[in-house]
Amino acid sequence: MNEAAITLDGWYVLHDFRQMDWASWKQVDPELRKEATDEFVAFLDELQQADDAKTGAHAFYTIVGQKADFMLMTLRPTIDELQEIEAKFNKLTIADFTIPAYSYVSVVELSNYLAGESTEDPYQNPHVRARLYPELQRSQYICFYPMDKRRNGEDNWYMLSMEDRRALMASHGKIGRGYAGKVKQIISGSVGFDDFEWGVTLFSDDVLQFKKLVYEMRFDEVSARYAEFGSFFIGTILAGEKRVEFFNI
Amino acid sequence: MNEAAITLDGWYVLHDFRQMDWASWKQVDPELRKEATDEFVAFLDELQQADDAKTGAHAFYTIVGQKADFMLMTLRPTIDELQEIEAKFNKLTIADFTIPAYSYVSVVELSNYLAGESTEDPYQNPHVRARLYPELQRSQYICFYPMDKRRNGEDNWYMLSMEDRRALMASHGKIGRGYAGKVKQIISGSVGFDDFEWGVTLFSDDVLQFKKLVYEMRFDEVSARYAEFGSFFIGTILAGEKRVEFFNI
Amino acid sequence: MNEAAITLDGWYVLHDFRQMDWASWKQVDPELRKEATDEFVAFLDELQQADDAKTGAHAFYTIVGQKADFMLMTLRPTIDELQEIEAKFNKLTIADFTIPAYSYVSVVELSNYLAGESTEDPYQNPHVRARLYPELQRSQYICFYPMDKRRNGEDNWYMLSMEDRRALMASHGKIGRGYAGKVKQIISGSVGFDDFEWGVTLFSDDVLQFKKLVYEMRFDEVSARYAEFGSFFIGTILAGEKRVEFFNI
Amino acid sequence: MNEAAITLDGWYVLHDFRQMDWASWKQVDPELRKEATDEFVAFLDELQQADDAKTGAHAFYTIVGQKADFMLMTLRPTIDELQEIEAKFNKLTIADFTIPAYSYVSVVELSNYLAGESTEDPYQNPHVRARLYPELQRSQYICFYPMDKRRNGEDNWYMLSMEDRRALMASHGKIGRGYAGKVKQIISGSVGFDDFEWGVTLFSDDVLQFKKLVYEMRFDEVSARYAEFGSFFIGTILAGEKRVEFFNI
Amino acid sequence: MNEAAITLDGWYVLHDFRQMDWASWKQVDPELRKEATDEFVAFLDELQQADDAKTGAHAFYTIVGQKADFMLMTLRPTIDELQEIEAKFNKLTIADFTIPAYSYVSVVELSNYLAGESTEDPYQNPHVRARLYPELQRSQYICFYPMDKRRNGEDNWYMLSMEDRRALMASHGKIGRGYAGKVKQIISGSVGFDDFEWGVTLFSDDVLQFKKLVYEMRFDEVSARYAEFGSFFIGTILAGEKRVEFFNI
Repeated sequence: MNEAAITLDGWYVLHDFRQMDWASWKQVDPELRKEATDEFVAFLDELQQADDAKTGAHAFYTIVGQKADFMLMTLRPTIDELQEIEAKFNKLTIADFTIPAYSYVSVVELSNYLAGESTEDPYQNPHVRARLYPELQRSQYICFYPMDKRRNGEDNWYMLSMEDRRALMASHGKIGRGYAGKVKQIISGSVGFDDFEWGVTLFSDDVLQFKKLVYEMRFDEVSARYAEFGSFFIGTILAGEKRVEFFNI
Repeated sequence: MNEAAITLDGWYVLHDFRQMDWASWKQVDPELRKEATDEFVAFLDELQQADDAKTGAHAFYTIVGQKADFMLMTLRPTIDELQEIEAKFNKLTIADFTIPAYSYVSVVELSNYLAGESTEDPYQNPHVRARLYPELQRSQYICFYPMDKRRNGEDNWYMLSMEDRRALMASHGKIGRGYAGKVKQIISGSVGFDDFEWGVTLFSDDVLQFKKLVYEMRFDEVSARYAEFGSFFIGTILAGEKRVEFFNI
Repeated sequence: MNEAAITLDGWYVLHDFRQMDWASWKQVDPELRKEATDEFVAFLDELQQADDAKTGAHAFYTIVGQKADFMLMTLRPTIDELQEIEAKFNKLTIADFTIPAYSYVSVVELSNYLAGESTEDPYQNPHVRARLYPELQRSQYICFYPMDKRRNGEDNWYMLSMEDRRALMASHGKIGRGYAGKVKQIISGSVGFDDFEWGVTLFSDDVLQFKKLVYEMRFDEVSARYAEFGSFFIGTILAGEKRVEFFNI
Repeated sequence: MNEAAITLDGWYVLHDFRQMDWASWKQVDPELRKEATDEFVAFLDELQQADDAKTGAHAFYTIVGQKADFMLMTLRPTIDELQEIEAKFNKLTIADFTIPAYSYVSVVELSNYLAGESTEDPYQNPHVRARLYPELQRSQYICFYPMDKRRNGEDNWYMLSMEDRRALMASHGKIGRGYAGKVKQIISGSVGFDDFEWGVTLFSDDVLQFKKLVYEMRFDEVSARYAEFGSFFIGTILAGEKRVEFFNI
Repeated sequence: MNEAAITLDGWYVLHDFRQMDWASWKQVDPELRKEATDEFVAFLDELQQADDAKTGAHAFYTIVGQKADFMLMTLRPTIDELQEIEAKFNKLTIADFTIPAYSYVSVVELSNYLAGESTEDPYQNPHVRARLYPELQRSQYICFYPMDKRRNGEDNWYMLSMEDRRALMASHGKIGRGYAGKVKQIISGSVGFDDFEWGVTLFSDDVLQFKKLVYEMRFDEVSARYAEFGSFFIGTILAGEKRVEFFNI
């Protein structure tokens, strides 16, 4: 039996991607459309209160291309709260003009591959806490993709020894640190929760940094031999009045 | 010809995942919506009677994310009864506001890999019976996923000797037992019944235990080399008044 | 060039799986719904006449789970007759309340792997004829799945010598014969006709025998190394008045 | 760099598979339905004029099973003409009652694997011309499937030497010639045009010959090791009055 | 850690493929249909102004076959501008009669595999600039396909040394240069932006050159062993009055 990495788990995360049914939305009476938009913005403002109180976080972006029109990412201490937010969204009027496009359920995760041994409780460490319960900056761009570690013939991550995995992850982490200050990265684990094993969410004010980071990592053995990627979603922020303009006809 | 494991087979199981067509549901007259909800709750109460009489079991959960809005799992002594329950559900008014999302047909199964030889009839053993005809606790969380054993080049489970499979399963079972009291697991076989070979249903009051269990198992050779997974569904319980509130607009 | 098995080909087969659009069906005026059901039952009775005259055969089952609501399997001497039956079904009123779910086109097939050499014309042999032009018993349960023989690296059925394939099939056939009297099996070939190479249709009055048979075979090298399976469909019979009740609201 | 086969390219081909929305079609006023059918038959008659003038060709078949209700195959000297035919079809009334099911874009192709060296211009050779700009007989049955040559580990067609490929194709061609007079075959190349590399269209008055031909070829190394197949479509001809009857309610 | 190629990145690109809902479009009042077409043509004319000012580029083609009815490709200095163009398109009346078919998000890319070392800033080199910020000729035909470099057992592009990749790419580039003057090629990178790693867009006035180029490349080791292709789309230009005629009923 091979040794599993120990993970630290933080807030639960729901990535909710929706397409707009623009044709139906345009046919709504303008007054009702305004009401529905206001109701939705109020819902987003309520989410923002949790961000302000540091009892959760959210991000709201429009996705480029046909995969989705917008993505709402919410983080909460329990999965029950995510379920309640989802149920509440479904009961908003604007939800009737959206079509589910993709969703992802996970929990913010730190793995111990890169951590040294310590006697302290990591959940009390403020640096760890800042990563497990992250504040989301209002970056201009977002990138999301789910991924697996491969179990494929000779390329089987889960058959590698802990030592080998640790060495590989160290090299991998070095690339990530080269983007410090340019790209903020949130890794969330989804083994047992969703179809891939991890979700990766990147934030940046320079969209090209996403490409540079992911491309550079692809030549690293962890990605080159052991990574399997799902769909990539890329978006630009919808904040303040942009949240209203986006839905204006 | 390789020796197949002998299995014990209990109740038949239908996992029925549905999405709500919220937009249409909201347009229904509130009085009719109440009637349709009451009719559905009465249907669920009738299922509960079989649970109480130990002539079957059921579980009703809302699924987090877009894969489904709710999941109804029913267990019965015959597949004909499952078919009748499905037909009856389809004729409920609320069914007209649901969209089929996924379903799974299987039968509760115990394999003999872990069992010692015995002269008694296992179907008379109360411990075996409790697992083949399980009572479902009202845990807060559910996790469901279907899976196959691989037949892929060097990683072919079905070409392993019985002895090798038994040794591998022993190690695998040890992980599962480490979660006793935290996660209740029901394995149901679906070879010949549905597209994967097994369905795994987990119940827990601590959702993080699903992730820990599945992740730990992934490093075990049985999963690392020989498991192929389908979609993962995760949900929170809908019991009592929550069954009504969920459908309230 | 490798030697292909010679096959004997019997009746052409169409497996036609349909979902009911229950929501629309319920909205039809009860009188019209009755007429549409009667028209469909008359269509099925007409199919039965071919069964009685041994000029064809049919089976009508409801499928458990969401893959389909019912499946109509028809066998005829020519593919043109199948096309006419399909066209006739599409013009029935009830067809407007069905949604195509899956279909399979094939021809009943016996391969010569298991046959001894013979100087007689096999198409005159009554045992062979009974299998090529089968009478379908009204078993309680049906199981259907399509399959391929693999052509995958070292596991390439079509690169094996005739001798090796014959030996492997002999072992495989032995398992099948162990279920004589419990499961009736119809193999139909679909190379050049549909996306998989064979369709397997099983009939039994004990649904668990399907699982036992398919599971036992999976450990046999023919399946373990060389079989690729499509979707599995499982159903219970709709005969006599059940054909009407199923569509009753 | 490996040597590519040189191909001769003839007419461009569009295979257009459509499903009928029978439920909507039945609701059309009978008079309008007749007009729409007549308009469509006039469109087909116009296609026939190109066949007669040998400035193109077409085939019109109903497909057995749910993959499509009919398939219209058209061949023209330019891809622009195919685009115009497609646009014209979309503007017919009957098109509004069809649902796109599958399409394939390719160009009739002869490869030089089997050709001897020659100093003449092959495009002036009448035998070559008859294959590049084929007249389509009105056979009772049609079979279409797209395919790739594999590039998979040890089974990589494109890494074989020209000499090896030529030898393999020679054996493969021999099987095809064994069906001369029984099956007429049109190979069209789609590298750069559609998702597979070739489309294969077979015509015969004996539908079983499709199965025999494709099955026999599957044991040949070119197919066994190097072929990857897409979906198979099989149909019966719609000619003369049958073109009207098919759409009659 | 393996050395990644350094890329030069130019304009961002959105390929937007749409199907027409012809049935609904035909039901629109002719006057409104004209207005909607005029509004769309004005939108295209506005895109053309960016082409003229060399602050962007666009291409508008009808796609042959059922994959899409038309494709609008736009290039801009920022991804935000692409998002705005997409949002603006969605708010046009004609958009209500289109169905999203496929889209691709990328950025025009030049890799350094083929470039010599240089001390100058390549972004100031006019030849480089002409490729990073390309003017799009109004060729008669377009071909688009996304692709990956493989990471599959022995065929893992990302595990090759920089030297090996450079040698392979040199041979690959030679084929491309053989089509100079016949096919214009735009490579855009999408690592981190979309599901494949690159998008390839080809322009030509001779559609057969697409097939010849892609086919010849397939025998080159870079494609034969290391390329994984997505869907291929092929189209003919819609320019001037053709933009109106295409939508005329």
